[in-house]
Amino acid sequence: MNKDQFTKQIEFIIEIDKLKNIYRQTILMDGSRRENDAEHSWHLAMMAMLLSDYANERGLDLLHTMKMVLIHDLVEIDAGDTFAYDEKGYKDKDEREQQAANRLFQLLPEEQAGEIYGLWREFENCSTPEARFAVALDRFQPLLHNYYTEGASWKKHGIKSSQVLERNKQIAEGSKDLWAFAEELIRNAVEKGYLEP
Amino acid sequence: MNKDQFTKQIEFIIEIDKLKNIYRQTILMDGSRRENDAEHSWHLAMMAMLLSDYANERGLDLLHTMKMVLIHDLVEIDAGDTFAYDEKGYKDKDEREQQAANRLFQLLPEEQAGEIYGLWREFENCSTPEARFAVALDRFQPLLHNYYTEGASWKKHGIKSSQVLERNKQIAEGSKDLWAFAEELIRNAVEKGYLEP
Repeated sequence: MNKDQFTKQIEFIIEIDKLKNIYRQTILMDGSRRENDAEHSWHLAMMAMLLSDYANERGLDLLHTMKMVLIHDLVEIDAGDTFAYDEKGYKDKDEREQQAANRLFQLLPEEQAGEIYGLWREFENCSTPEARFAVALDRFQPLLHNYYTEGASWKKHGIKSSQVLERNKQIAEGSKDLWAFAEELIRNAVEKGYLEP
Repeated sequence: MNKDQFTKQIEFIIEIDKLKNIYRQTILMDGSRRENDAEHSWHLAMMAMLLSDYANERGLDLLHTMKMVLIHDLVEIDAGDTFAYDEKGYKDKDEREQQAANRLFQLLPEEQAGEIYGLWREFENCSTPEARFAVALDRFQPLLHNYYTEGASWKKHGIKSSQVLERNKQIAEGSKDLWAFAEELIRNAVEKGYLEP
């Protein structure tokens, strides 16, 4: 055992505990409170496990997909969560997140820092079938939460269906099946008054 | 796409959102509040990814280990969290959790229900190298939290070092390296007054 490596890994594991206090705009299904990034990442990993048959490309590397969803929001420990419909926040999002990646991942031994940095860039760039499916899940999950809380987060921020369609059409690049279901959900949400037309 | 299967999968994904409201005795590293099972499961999956080199057996199946830690606490949605040192709670823990598994996993299509049930039994029975490592992480993670919150949960429940040693020696079956570090942590915790001798 390399003591120096191990110490770095433990320090990183302690540092990322902070992800449990990064709160998103998504409301839990029971309406009780906002969801945090650690819970969100767990939920995506469960969805990857259960829904990978619906990915556009056959023979997805599930372990790789899971790693990506587990680490995709770590940079928000420093950069904070940027709400999907916050145009101003998106302007410097990349820069804030890049700085966060530089600090956070460097806590790890070199090889693992490189692996996690690579997974994060792959997710951000949607550069592989695994990344496109991971991004599809990351869009799809808050849609489910919004629908089953009768549009709690949409209503709070005055979001319109055109914005939801525009933001989430990227789901189709990872999974045409999930996107077909998502479109139906959005139509139903408008009909039921959860979402403005 | 099989619509009936997909509906079941979505219902399960909505149901397991409840894991985010199952609170454990572990206190977050910043001392702010108790940790919930979804966050805990995410943290274990990250640890599996980062620490698998320390497993006793070489060539661990990491995907299998990750799946196990992601699903290991789902039964607590019905059965609740049983505190590690709650002797009374442990008496009917198995029965409560078995009933929970029967209800919850049956929400899924048959094949996936079988897979998740199998993963859960494997974890509970420590019947494979992957399960022994997963269980080791499940013991190791709250130790870290206790140490870095100066024994918050130990103090609250008046736990003694002999109990912590007895409870956690199982870590050695999954990882002798993690257990060596854990023993050192427990000794330091006693020295610093975080834990009763």
